[in-house]
Amino acid sequence: MENGSCENGSDNQKWKFRGNKELNTSSVSVRGFLNLLMQNINGKDDRPTILICRGDPTEFPSYRTTSSAVDAVVDSLRSFNFNSYASTVGVPVARKAIAEYLSQDLSYELSPDDVYLTSGGSQAIEIVVSVLSRPGANILLPRPGYPNYEARAAFDNLEVRHFDLIPERGWEVDLDSVEALADDNTAAIVIINPNNPCGNVFKYQHLKQIAETARKLGIFVISDEVYGHLVVGSNPFVPMGEFASIVPVVTLGSLSKRWMVPGWRLGWIVTNDPHDIFKKTGIVESIKSCLDISTDPVTFIQGAVPQILEKTSKDFFSNIINIMRETSEFLYDTIKAIPCLTCPHKPEGSMAVMVKLELPLLENISSDLDFCLKLAKEESLIILPGVAVGLKNWVRITFATDLPTLEDGLGRLKAFCERHAKKQTNQSSNGDM
Amino acid sequence: MENGSCENGSDNQKWKFRGNKELNTSSVSVRGFLNLLMQNINGKDDRPTILICRGDPTEFPSYRTTSSAVDAVVDSLRSFNFNSYASTVGVPVARKAIAEYLSQDLSYELSPDDVYLTSGGSQAIEIVVSVLSRPGANILLPRPGYPNYEARAAFDNLEVRHFDLIPERGWEVDLDSVEALADDNTAAIVIINPNNPCGNVFKYQHLKQIAETARKLGIFVISDEVYGHLVVGSNPFVPMGEFASIVPVVTLGSLSKRWMVPGWRLGWIVTNDPHDIFKKTGIVESIKSCLDISTDPVTFIQGAVPQILEKTSKDFFSNIINIMRETSEFLYDTIKAIPCLTCPHKPEGSMAVMVKLELPLLENISSDLDFCLKLAKEESLIILPGVAVGLKNWVRITFATDLPTLEDGLGRLKAFCERHAKKQTNQSSNGDM
Ligand SMILES: Cc1ncc(COP(=O)(O)O)c(C=O)c1O
Ligand SMILES: Cc1ncc(COP(=O)(O)O)c(C=O)c1O
Repeated sequence: MENGSCENGSDNQKWKFRGNKELNTSSVSVRGFLNLLMQNINGKDDRPTILICRGDPTEFPSYRTTSSAVDAVVDSLRSFNFNSYASTVGVPVARKAIAEYLSQDLSYELSPDDVYLTSGGSQAIEIVVSVLSRPGANILLPRPGYPNYEARAAFDNLEVRHFDLIPERGWEVDLDSVEALADDNTAAIVIINPNNPCGNVFKYQHLKQIAETARKLGIFVISDEVYGHLVVGSNPFVPMGEFASIVPVVTLGSLSKRWMVPGWRLGWIVTNDPHDIFKKTGIVESIKSCLDISTDPVTFIQGAVPQILEKTSKDFFSNIINIMRETSEFLYDTIKAIPCLTCPHKPEGSMAVMVKLELPLLENISSDLDFCLKLAKEESLIILPGVAVGLKNWVRITFATDLPTLEDGLGRLKAFCERHAKKQTNQSSNGDM
Repeated sequence: MENGSCENGSDNQKWKFRGNKELNTSSVSVRGFLNLLMQNINGKDDRPTILICRGDPTEFPSYRTTSSAVDAVVDSLRSFNFNSYASTVGVPVARKAIAEYLSQDLSYELSPDDVYLTSGGSQAIEIVVSVLSRPGANILLPRPGYPNYEARAAFDNLEVRHFDLIPERGWEVDLDSVEALADDNTAAIVIINPNNPCGNVFKYQHLKQIAETARKLGIFVISDEVYGHLVVGSNPFVPMGEFASIVPVVTLGSLSKRWMVPGWRLGWIVTNDPHDIFKKTGIVESIKSCLDISTDPVTFIQGAVPQILEKTSKDFFSNIINIMRETSEFLYDTIKAIPCLTCPHKPEGSMAVMVKLELPLLENISSDLDFCLKLAKEESLIILPGVAVGLKNWVRITFATDLPTLEDGLGRLKAFCERHAKKQTNQSSNGDM
């Protein structure tokens, strides 16, 4: 039957259904780009393929999660108390624990009712974007950014407007362009802090300015703090919720990055809203409605959240930070010595940094994507083209690897750039003409 | 600040954002109805509230999942091999194990590439509905049915057309109405087998007729087999995939029901398609694209799937079936003796059955919802009004409880109906006039 005639197949038969082209996201999702690059790997290269493109270092033993978190999940599972469907908004003990955990960094107390559990930060994005997708509405997104926002907005027909992050100002938000972009249909502005893909951590004063700008515009702030506390520089992490008396704030977070467990899919949406503006405007009701018809995070992982948050030692966190400080500094210093690349701002947090390609100095490289495709083919090295995060002719490199892998990867990157750099003599003679 | 003045709040400030009313699902989701009913519980009633409305019996010790499944998850978690993000389509070992598991009931072999892992059957529905939501398209859904389909379709602006399941014919599909409903924009027909909410199990011949009808119409079949193998009657469970040479079939399934672990959120979408029609029509690409921008099932639970499928003993399954056979028969027999209720078809599978209200025989009950609201208030008993599943003036009762709970619940239902039944003498004297 498998390879027989198509008499039962499509030969004389007309099928009316078609895939949904609007879903074709390979040109917008990080996964889509990575798949494309992986296809370009030269199978004859004996060297292992190196990926310095992902926010997921968990394959490296040095980034292994703490056994106390694993034990918490095992205990919850073996209790047999958390095998049922969870309630729409999440298991009460988990909501309470997360409210307390986040309140440690705030000058006020969150209530468990402010916390909605999601299947990772990704589903938090899905939900929040859906909540905003009223016909005609628009949302302000950072450029460069995290492309899941664009993908989900396209999916829900929510209009997107991009404001710039300014490399020369440590990737701060271009607040003038925010004001110019917003109109009466703008609902919210998204910031990512610590920032993926730029690696900066916003300062207190800048966050306050963002809050004031949003208030002036009558929009709220969505603060993606999935990388919360992953800070390797001197700017401390300040949660945007600290400014909730100025403007209502929705915070998105997850265990994925700080606990090194992206596969556990445990995230949250938190409303920071002392004046109950989200209730009055129907945002809370829409969040609940959307969660009502969406899948949930695993119940026994929810059940483990109190123990995970309580029992994780400070040493686990500081150990991870120390490793990432070392790799991020190594990355920054090494890039300085590679021709045709510049990194305008030393990484301060998250797991990635943006590096600029000096395309005019490169021979036969037409774009960032071309650069990354050839790099994959010639060096079995995968880095993310900037176009994937909204910034052409840049690349995103992650430092969330172990040091030997990063050394090997950056060695290949250097060899590639040296090989493809235009010859100096040619250039200066061109200049002479 | 919490209860201070609103000077920083909404007093003089205009906020432009609003919730998304299109999301307001409380009138369509099962969860929405249950929340409504729970609000009607009389706090002064000393008796515990009884819920015979959910497809989730896991709070009862007799429905506890097998420890071999729990061990499989613990092993996978403790291996530290499954803490990363999973690939879009799912972990290879899990895809392979599910392909083999499902192939046991088919006369051909599924390939691992036919299997896409999802966060429960719920996310499988989310994805499949999104894939079909091309502008102008429509989908055929059963009435009564599982309201998540309607909710997700409304969310994605996919038009829904309902065909009837016929109680007098053991809830078989009204194939004539299917043909009358379909047009050039119809993409697929959904069937649920074993059936929720009716409790029937479709016969081989009827499934074949459905396949042939779909083929004639040029549409494919989505077979929701989340209750696969949960069969207590004499009709065996036949997977729709058995007819994939007639018409391409997408099967949805999950561990939730058969393994009694709805909180584990592990489901799948399977393409049963020997003629590669889903590839040619772009359905496969759309499934992948949609998964690309959606959250995933937990990686370490995916990693546990091979061991779960391999190690679960036959005794575990047959023990559960024996309990459910007993409760379903008790339910059916008891309903017979309750005035104003009829159950036209003895339950054969799934966890629920539809029961008809004879409203003209009931005093002061205006509808199924009114019936369920009063039942909640007077008897602290929660059952689902038929309107929640598309069938007015019926109710859905689940037999997935332990026997004492069902006895207690049906006792209350009987007391309620006897109390609210119109007096016979009045009736006949009315009739005399
Ligand atoms: C900025 C940002 N937000 C959200 C997410 C998704 O978080 P999660 O892995 O918890 O789904 C990521 C993942 O990399 C991210 O980089
Ligand atoms: C018919 C049907 N399909 C799908 C689902 C969802 O399955 P899961 O619990 O695996 O998400 C349910 C849950 O009750 C159901 O009844």
